[in-house]
Amino acid sequence: MRQGNLLYAQSGGVTAVINATAAAVIDEARARKVKVLAARNGILGALREELIDTSRESPAAIRALAHTPGGAFGSCRLKLKSLEADRARYERLLEVFRAHDIRYFLYNGGNDSADTALKVSQLAKAFDYPLTCIGVPKTVDNDLAVTDTCPGFGSAAKFTAVSVREAALDVAAMAETSTKVFVYEAMGRHAGWLAAAAGLAGEDPDAAPQIILFPERAYDEAAFLAQVRKVVDKVGWCVVVASEGIQHADGRFVADAGGGKDSFGHTQLGGVASYLAGRVKDQLGMKVHWTLPDYLQRSARHIASETDWKQAQAVGKAAVQMALKGDNAVMPVIVRSSDLPYRWKIEAVPLSKVANHEKKMPAGFIRKDGFGITASARRYLQPLIRGQAPLPYGSNGLPVYVTLKNIAVKQKLPAWDAG
Amino acid sequence: MRQGNLLYAQSGGVTAVINATAAAVIDEARARKVKVLAARNGILGALREELIDTSRESPAAIRALAHTPGGAFGSCRLKLKSLEADRARYERLLEVFRAHDIRYFLYNGGNDSADTALKVSQLAKAFDYPLTCIGVPKTVDNDLAVTDTCPGFGSAAKFTAVSVREAALDVAAMAETSTKVFVYEAMGRHAGWLAAAAGLAGEDPDAAPQIILFPERAYDEAAFLAQVRKVVDKVGWCVVVASEGIQHADGRFVADAGGGKDSFGHTQLGGVASYLAGRVKDQLGMKVHWTLPDYLQRSARHIASETDWKQAQAVGKAAVQMALKGDNAVMPVIVRSSDLPYRWKIEAVPLSKVANHEKKMPAGFIRKDGFGITASARRYLQPLIRGQAPLPYGSNGLPVYVTLKNIAVKQKLPAWDAG
Repeated sequence: MRQGNLLYAQSGGVTAVINATAAAVIDEARARKVKVLAARNGILGALREELIDTSRESPAAIRALAHTPGGAFGSCRLKLKSLEADRARYERLLEVFRAHDIRYFLYNGGNDSADTALKVSQLAKAFDYPLTCIGVPKTVDNDLAVTDTCPGFGSAAKFTAVSVREAALDVAAMAETSTKVFVYEAMGRHAGWLAAAAGLAGEDPDAAPQIILFPERAYDEAAFLAQVRKVVDKVGWCVVVASEGIQHADGRFVADAGGGKDSFGHTQLGGVASYLAGRVKDQLGMKVHWTLPDYLQRSARHIASETDWKQAQAVGKAAVQMALKGDNAVMPVIVRSSDLPYRWKIEAVPLSKVANHEKKMPAGFIRKDGFGITASARRYLQPLIRGQAPLPYGSNGLPVYVTLKNIAVKQKLPAWDAG
Repeated sequence: MRQGNLLYAQSGGVTAVINATAAAVIDEARARKVKVLAARNGILGALREELIDTSRESPAAIRALAHTPGGAFGSCRLKLKSLEADRARYERLLEVFRAHDIRYFLYNGGNDSADTALKVSQLAKAFDYPLTCIGVPKTVDNDLAVTDTCPGFGSAAKFTAVSVREAALDVAAMAETSTKVFVYEAMGRHAGWLAAAAGLAGEDPDAAPQIILFPERAYDEAAFLAQVRKVVDKVGWCVVVASEGIQHADGRFVADAGGGKDSFGHTQLGGVASYLAGRVKDQLGMKVHWTLPDYLQRSARHIASETDWKQAQAVGKAAVQMALKGDNAVMPVIVRSSDLPYRWKIEAVPLSKVANHEKKMPAGFIRKDGFGITASARRYLQPLIRGQAPLPYGSNGLPVYVTLKNIAVKQKLPAWDAG
C-alpha cells in the first residue's frame, strides 16, 4: 500500500531549535520510508505549491540541521482565518495536498498554527480526503495551552538567564563611577515567561535581576522608580528585566511610542527598555544602560538548552509516529511528571484543546510585590534551561550551521495567488 | 630581601576575560611568593586606600576567576590628568603604595590607563620610591597602539560574529512575510573594530552582514538606503551592522539624532540601530527589526574566544614576570608573527609608545564601497575569534561564575577624598 507523502511546514517566528524538530521529523519519516516535503516559507509555500524535496538532502545535512537555528525552509506570518472567510485558501491547500499525494500534514508553530492544522483536518474530512493533521509545538513565548513548555522557549530562557547574569557582573564592576541601572528588554507580548526566566540568573534576594516587570501586572511608574532607588541604595546598582508587553493600568502598552502593526495586526513593540531607561535617568538622575536583544534571544543556538533541544526533537519524532498511526488533529505535547528529578514525556492531545488558547503565567509565579518570581516559578523554569545542547564549531571559531539545498518539487498545478 | 607587594587594578569598561588576566597575575605572583593586593573599583580604591587582600582567596576561587566575566574587584572610569593638574592624586597614590609596601603596580586597562601607569612611574622616580609600573592591555574596542590585538576584543568579536550569523538565519527564514532588514548596533565610538568583526559571520558575497557601517567612513544616508534596497532586491533580506560611532560627513554622531525629548519632556534615548531602522522603515517601507546588545557583547563569557582567553592570561602572567624583572613603565603586548598558522608571542614595549594613542582600522581593512571588510581584515580578525574558551556549567544550566570574598586590607592612612 502506498502511504503517501508527509508535508512539514514551519510557522511564525522561528527559534534556536525549530530545525531540531524538522530534523527529527525527517529522520523518523526516513526510517519509516515516508517522503517528507517541506513547504517553502511555511503555509505560503503550501498555497503556492512551492514545496521542497527533503529526500535530496544528505544524512549529514539533516544531522547538521538538528543544531542549526532559524527556519531552514522558511517560515511566515500568514494566519488563516475561519473556514468560511478563508475558504479558497483551505481548498487550495487540499488541492496541493492531493496533487502531491500528501497524506500527513505537520504544522510546526504556535496557537494560530494549531488552529490552522485543526481547520485543515476538518475540511479534509468534509471533502473525504484522507489526511492526518498534526500540530507540532514551537514558540519562544511559551504561551501554548496544555503543553508543559514549548520547544524554543527553554533556549531563549537560557540565553536570557545567562546574559542577565553576565551583564550584571559587568554592571556590578562599573557601578561606582558609571552605570548604576541596566535595563534588559525580553520578548513576550502578553505573557512574561521570558522575563520570568531572567529570574533564574540569581537566587540571592539581592542578586540580579533585582526587578522584573511582567505584562501580567500593570506598570506603576512610581512604584517602579521607588524600587529602583531602593535596590541601588542597598546593592549599589540594579538590573531590571522588562517584558516588551508591559502595560499601564489602563491597558496602554508602555512601549507604544514605537507604534506600528505586524501582519497579524499585533502592535509592533520594542521600546520598553529605552523608555524605562529614560525614566530612570530623568527621575532618578542615575547613569543607565539598556539592551534590546531582539532576535538574538530566540536565535542563539550557541547557548541552547539541552532540555529544550531534546524536547524539540522529541515532539518532531512523536509527530511522525502519531501521524503514521492516524492520530488525526492532535499535537504531541510535553507532559511533566516530576520537577526534581525533572521527568517528562510526550503525549497526544486534541488540537481543539490547544488552538487559539493562550497560556499566561500563573499568578503564583509572580512575587507579591510584582517585581520577581516565586519559588514555584523557579521550580517550573529551572529544568528548562538545564544542559548545554551540543554544537560543533569550525576551525574558524564559528558554529557549523547548514544551509540546505532546498530543491523544489516540480509544480503540477497552475499558479495561484496566495495573497 | 623583602620584595614588597604587588597592586593590581582594573580600569575602564570590563570585558569577558579581564578576570582571566587577573587570575593569571595572581597565579604567577603566588608562584613567586609575591602578595597581590587588588584595588577596589580600580584606581579609586588605590586613592581611597580600599585594597583587597587576594591571598585570602582559595586556589579554587582563582581558578574560577579565570572564567568569570566582569571585573571581580570593581573598575572605574576615573582618568587621571597630567602630573601637574592631578598632582595631589598622584602623590596620594605613592603614599598609599608606601603604606602598603607596594613595589609593583599593574594597571589593567586601555590607553588612559597606560598613560596613568606611565605617570605614576615617573613620579615614583622623581620621589625616589622604588616602584615598577606595568600597563596590562585590555579593551573590547581593540584601539590600543602597538599590540596586535587587545584582550577582551576577541571575545566580543566572537559574540558579534556568532550573533549576527544566528540572527541572520532567523531573518532569512522570516523575510518573505516579515522582517526584511535587521540592524545590529556594535560598540566602538571611534574605531569600527567590532563592527568589522561581524564581517566574519559570512564569507559569501551575499552572506550576512551584507552592510557594515564604520565610524572611519562618513555616513551617507542616500548611499546606505540605496545599498539596503539593492541587497533586499537581490537576497530578499539584509542584515546591517553599524558601529555606534558612525558620523555624518560634518562630524555629527548619527546616534545623537535619536536622542532628545519626547512630547512629555521625557528623555528619549537614541542609538544608531534604532535611527537606521527608522530610516529604512520610513524611506523604504520595509519591515525592520534592530538590536542593541550593549553590555551583552562585552560580558558574554559563554561565547568567549579561546585565543582571546589565552592572550588575556598570557599578558597577566608576562606582566608579573616583567615587574619582577624590574622592567619599568612597559606593557606586555601581543605580537603576531604569522596569520596562518596563527602565531603570537608577548613582548614588552615602553608605555610611552602606547599611552594616549588610538589605533583605528587601517584603510585597507574597509572595502572600497565602505560597506564591508576586505580580505586583509578577515586575515587579521579571523584567528582572534578562534576556539571556544572552556567554561564549566552547573547542574542548573548556568555557567559557574565566582564571587570573590574581596576581604579588605586594614587601612593605615587617614581617609582621603578621592573626588
